Amino acid sequence: MKICFIGSCGHAYRTYREMQTCGDAEFVGIAPGSEHEDIDALDRYGMPVYSSYEEMICTTRPEVAVISPVFGLTGKIAVYCAERGINVFCEKPVASDLSELRVLEKAVKENNIHFSAMHFLRFTPSFYAAGKLVREGGIGEVKLMTAQKSYKYGSRPEWYADRGLYTGTIPWIGIHAIDWLYYFGQKKFLTVNAIHSGNPEMTALCQFELEGGVPASVNLDYYRPGTAATHGDDRIRVVGNEGVIEVFGDRYQLINKDGESTVYPTEAPLLARDYLLGREELSAEEIFMLTRVALIARESADKKEKLRIE
Amino acid sequence: MKICFIGSCGHAYRTYREMQTCGDAEFVGIAPGSEHEDIDALDRYGMPVYSSYEEMICTTRPEVAVISPVFGLTGKIAVYCAERGINVFCEKPVASDLSELRVLEKAVKENNIHFSAMHFLRFTPSFYAAGKLVREGGIGEVKLMTAQKSYKYGSRPEWYADRGLYTGTIPWIGIHAIDWLYYFGQKKFLTVNAIHSGNPEMTALCQFELEGGVPASVNLDYYRPGTAATHGDDRIRVVGNEGVIEVFGDRYQLINKDGESTVYPTEAPLLARDYLLGREELSAEEIFMLTRVALIARESADKKEKLRIE
Repeated sequence: MKICFIGSCGHAYRTYREMQTCGDAEFVGIAPGSEHEDIDALDRYGMPVYSSYEEMICTTRPEVAVISPVFGLTGKIAVYCAERGINVFCEKPVASDLSELRVLEKAVKENNIHFSAMHFLRFTPSFYAAGKLVREGGIGEVKLMTAQKSYKYGSRPEWYADRGLYTGTIPWIGIHAIDWLYYFGQKKFLTVNAIHSGNPEMTALCQFELEGGVPASVNLDYYRPGTAATHGDDRIRVVGNEGVIEVFGDRYQLINKDGESTVYPTEAPLLARDYLLGREELSAEEIFMLTRVALIARESADKKEKLRIE
Repeated sequence: MKICFIGSCGHAYRTYREMQTCGDAEFVGIAPGSEHEDIDALDRYGMPVYSSYEEMICTTRPEVAVISPVFGLTGKIAVYCAERGINVFCEKPVASDLSELRVLEKAVKENNIHFSAMHFLRFTPSFYAAGKLVREGGIGEVKLMTAQKSYKYGSRPEWYADRGLYTGTIPWIGIHAIDWLYYFGQKKFLTVNAIHSGNPEMTALCQFELEGGVPASVNLDYYRPGTAATHGDDRIRVVGNEGVIEVFGDRYQLINKDGESTVYPTEAPLLARDYLLGREELSAEEIFMLTRVALIARESADKKEKLRIE
């Protein structure tokens, strides 16, 4: 299976490492997604480097494009590939605004391509196992969810301060937590009220009303001190009518009728590998829905208005 | 100092125990706040029991009334006492709706009484010490706050399902977390979007925009399993631009430029004792403001509308 890479921002290298474990993967080339990327950094992938992805595609005729440019360009390049019948595995958010999202959905459907995206954090073993437990009724009915992403800012490229290139902290970071809310609760998003602050947004808070009146929130920040033991402080807490589960980093804590327990799961599917094998546990429809939710949440924060999610 | 007790719901007994440590406290009588209370339960206070608080006040001429009836009657009885020039230490919420709150504020001011309320949870040693640290700049500027109250429901009186008697989970439980947000952040509340569900409300989520665009949320639930080690799972996490602090029950964890540390504070003021000594760290104005915020949050959840907090 001929695979090319466009851009090496975000989770491109992780994707490459997972795809390498798939026997019939053939890596035909890599090109930057735009002039914002350092072409010299592409050598480490050990595949032919092209200066133009258009030329690379024309030359190599790939079956799969892995797309991970500066975040705001993902959707445009995904549409470019979809319209040429190339299957797409791309970075999230898969589109930078709602109109681009509609164009992408249309291109994916009309060209009948295999589409997925780098929602890797659903497949962190602790989150994956805890989510499975909740979906199988392990805490009864889901009544309340709160999720968190907190990162060290460290040093990040200057284009993080350019909304058009970065997309915003809610679409870039928050979408992972929104994904958890959906993966754990399996409930439709009805409304959102969001707040964010800074450029790039250093904090954000999104409050959702889910199907059945279930409240859920996501808090995000880039203020995790450099001295902290881990880069991120990822969490979700889910309250059910028969138990409470909370994921903290690599473990989950469950309290149910049997008492309290802490579990450190180690197994989860490899999303990028599974994509190549055609068995990823994440549909294109889900990805489009999650992207829509994140983009409407960003709009809510920009407008300082509570919005319906249609 | 002659003190009478009206009602023994909520934190009445805790108040009694704290006030006992104050040398010149003289406990002149106790009466139920309404027919919803069991008068036989009042014997344990070891003071004269009256069947009517009106009669008790007329007979004993107290200087202080400790008011803790079924929650929805607190405001009415506080107004009754204030209008008779009796100093008031009452349960929270100090009023059951905004119009009652206005009447109470007026009665407190016009009669120039000493007024405070049972916002005891600000004075839990872990919260008190962590809040002090934040107020003194220990994590720089406050950028994001999330607070939690999660309780076992256990067995509670039937009147919890009567809004008029219970007031609602946001005013009854949520106000403690709202108090923490204010105690830690010292910021004005600008808007609220809240969601609650059940009767009594078994879950609630309030999202606030604070002064300077700082986002803050409060999540509440009564679903803590009976098997959990503690009755409650109280928390606040405050993100600053120079550190993050989080209180979990009896400890706080601080991450700042010096690294990570965990502290178990043991000292904090005794609110009810300090009230008698005229040195409580909580003003009547703060209490009225916090009550207003909680009541507007409840209204936001009832109406499913984001509201301004004036």
